[in-house]
Amino acid sequence: MTGDAVVIDGLQYSNWDREIFEQMRAGGLDAVHVTATYWENTRELLSNLGRWNRRFEAHPDLIRPVATADDIRSARREGRTGIIFGLQNCSPIEDDIDMVALLKRLNVHIMQLSYNNQSLICAGCYEDNDPGISRFGHQVIREMNRVGMIIDMSHSAEFSTLEAIRLSERPIVISHANPLFFREARRNKSEKVLRALAESGGLLGFSCYPFHLRDGSDCTLESFTEMIARTVDLMGIEHVGIGTDLCQKQPLSVLEWMRNGRWSKVKDYGEGSASNADWPRPLSWLRTTADFGNIATGLHDRGFSNEEVQRIMGMNWLHFFDQALQPEGA
Amino acid sequence: MTGDAVVIDGLQYSNWDREIFEQMRAGGLDAVHVTATYWENTRELLSNLGRWNRRFEAHPDLIRPVATADDIRSARREGRTGIIFGLQNCSPIEDDIDMVALLKRLNVHIMQLSYNNQSLICAGCYEDNDPGISRFGHQVIREMNRVGMIIDMSHSAEFSTLEAIRLSERPIVISHANPLFFREARRNKSEKVLRALAESGGLLGFSCYPFHLRDGSDCTLESFTEMIARTVDLMGIEHVGIGTDLCQKQPLSVLEWMRNGRWSKVKDYGEGSASNADWPRPLSWLRTTADFGNIATGLHDRGFSNEEVQRIMGMNWLHFFDQALQPEGA
Repeated sequence: MTGDAVVIDGLQYSNWDREIFEQMRAGGLDAVHVTATYWENTRELLSNLGRWNRRFEAHPDLIRPVATADDIRSARREGRTGIIFGLQNCSPIEDDIDMVALLKRLNVHIMQLSYNNQSLICAGCYEDNDPGISRFGHQVIREMNRVGMIIDMSHSAEFSTLEAIRLSERPIVISHANPLFFREARRNKSEKVLRALAESGGLLGFSCYPFHLRDGSDCTLESFTEMIARTVDLMGIEHVGIGTDLCQKQPLSVLEWMRNGRWSKVKDYGEGSASNADWPRPLSWLRTTADFGNIATGLHDRGFSNEEVQRIMGMNWLHFFDQALQPEGA
Repeated sequence: MTGDAVVIDGLQYSNWDREIFEQMRAGGLDAVHVTATYWENTRELLSNLGRWNRRFEAHPDLIRPVATADDIRSARREGRTGIIFGLQNCSPIEDDIDMVALLKRLNVHIMQLSYNNQSLICAGCYEDNDPGISRFGHQVIREMNRVGMIIDMSHSAEFSTLEAIRLSERPIVISHANPLFFREARRNKSEKVLRALAESGGLLGFSCYPFHLRDGSDCTLESFTEMIARTVDLMGIEHVGIGTDLCQKQPLSVLEWMRNGRWSKVKDYGEGSASNADWPRPLSWLRTTADFGNIATGLHDRGFSNEEVQRIMGMNWLHFFDQALQPEGA
């Protein structure tokens, strides 16, 4: 990217080390939304945030924390990558409404209301039945709106997602998923959801996780950018970004944690299967976060204008954060 | 009661002290199912169980722990009241399937799958929508069946309750609630639920909490026993017992904890209201657990036979525990 255009990846969860942070710099990333927890509770989240503090201490030349959207602009000027904390489930607030404001103070800016399963707030995308938003959920949405914590419905079920969009007084995101028309998968989203998301001012981050892509690990960059073009026709150019869902250097045990947490005695394979239980093979055009710029190249090749490419590659996320990270009334 | 007939109260939650334990003895109670938690998590439950250990140490002449149904018979012989631990919500297992077996080892024998609100397992009776049993819930029911922990749906929503009855391979209970025909209340149960409960070999404990009674705190003993007679016609004499829901000496702060937990910033009044927020006035015929025998007198007066009165006053609970507290295959 050139000029002041900020580049943002709307979701990564890697086995963080200096090499990965160097790859973020090589990929030109000014900010990354990183997953701090899947199933962890409050105390376990704090430990994970503590580990991030050690990383900020150890690699101050490469990464920095993000409290506001302007911190992302600062990161760009400093030649560092801003780290935006997010949660893939509401488990770190446990059953405690007061945790929302406390976690926001610790730079937790994004929270999914469920992760695959039923949560205390709403249904996940793998549940058979979907009650929408619970009594607790109504209060959590109100509180997240108040403090400026972004609602993310990437792993939630459809009715719950539509209800979250309806109930939230501020726009929400689906940080990492693709349209169902691109691949039938319980994690991908219907046109109904995508339209409602766009109409409410929300944002979709396109996922590069092979299980969310047509042809899986063999999905071409052309196919991916064609999906983006079709989704832009549906949602409008302002409402899309990237959320690669890159999980680098993670052992199988982490995938099993993501899929099984502590809730299952029977091994659950998520989007995989017993015969295909491992991490999917990486895409040829996105082996690591250093390849992030390939997506911009692909978008140019597909015929997007410079401004459109900049929007998709990060400026839509940045403008969303400008509003969404501020407390209500600020 | 005379002879070997055991007397059991299927639910109490009091601010436990020696006077209350003396009242249990005065009321002829051989065992009481006591609530160990409402919204507490694993660690908080352990503290509450620790407090119970102190009570067993301080009052060995009055109370004893219960690990098996035979411990209730022993309690009767010893002239003590057996204490059966139960949870009014699944919050103490958090999201961890392995907690079921561990808590069973700590004499936690009964667990509600939800308390008023949506839990990780199913809907509570105050939710507008009810998805039934979640993916986690399927596994928890299977595990509770395996280790011999009793499923209690007293505060759960209707479809969730019917699904729990259907999915559980062992009979379940509704330890403290009344039929809807006696009083329209979200906590009371439809004839459909009561029939399904009886057909599956389950047990209903009649509640004496004024909000569950016709005429509230003015409900007469005659009205209460008439309800029992009508419910026996519906369910059969084998499927009913008592679960008074007595909450003695509790301050308003405890009622507020029961109603609001940590989940609500807006004060929730449960079955009460802003103008009627306090504990309800006690029944004239059940001021304390010492009055428990009045219920037997009322049942005799209503025309129940000695054997029927003994069943309702505790023998149905005892026979239920004979089966239900044993691990599967034992």
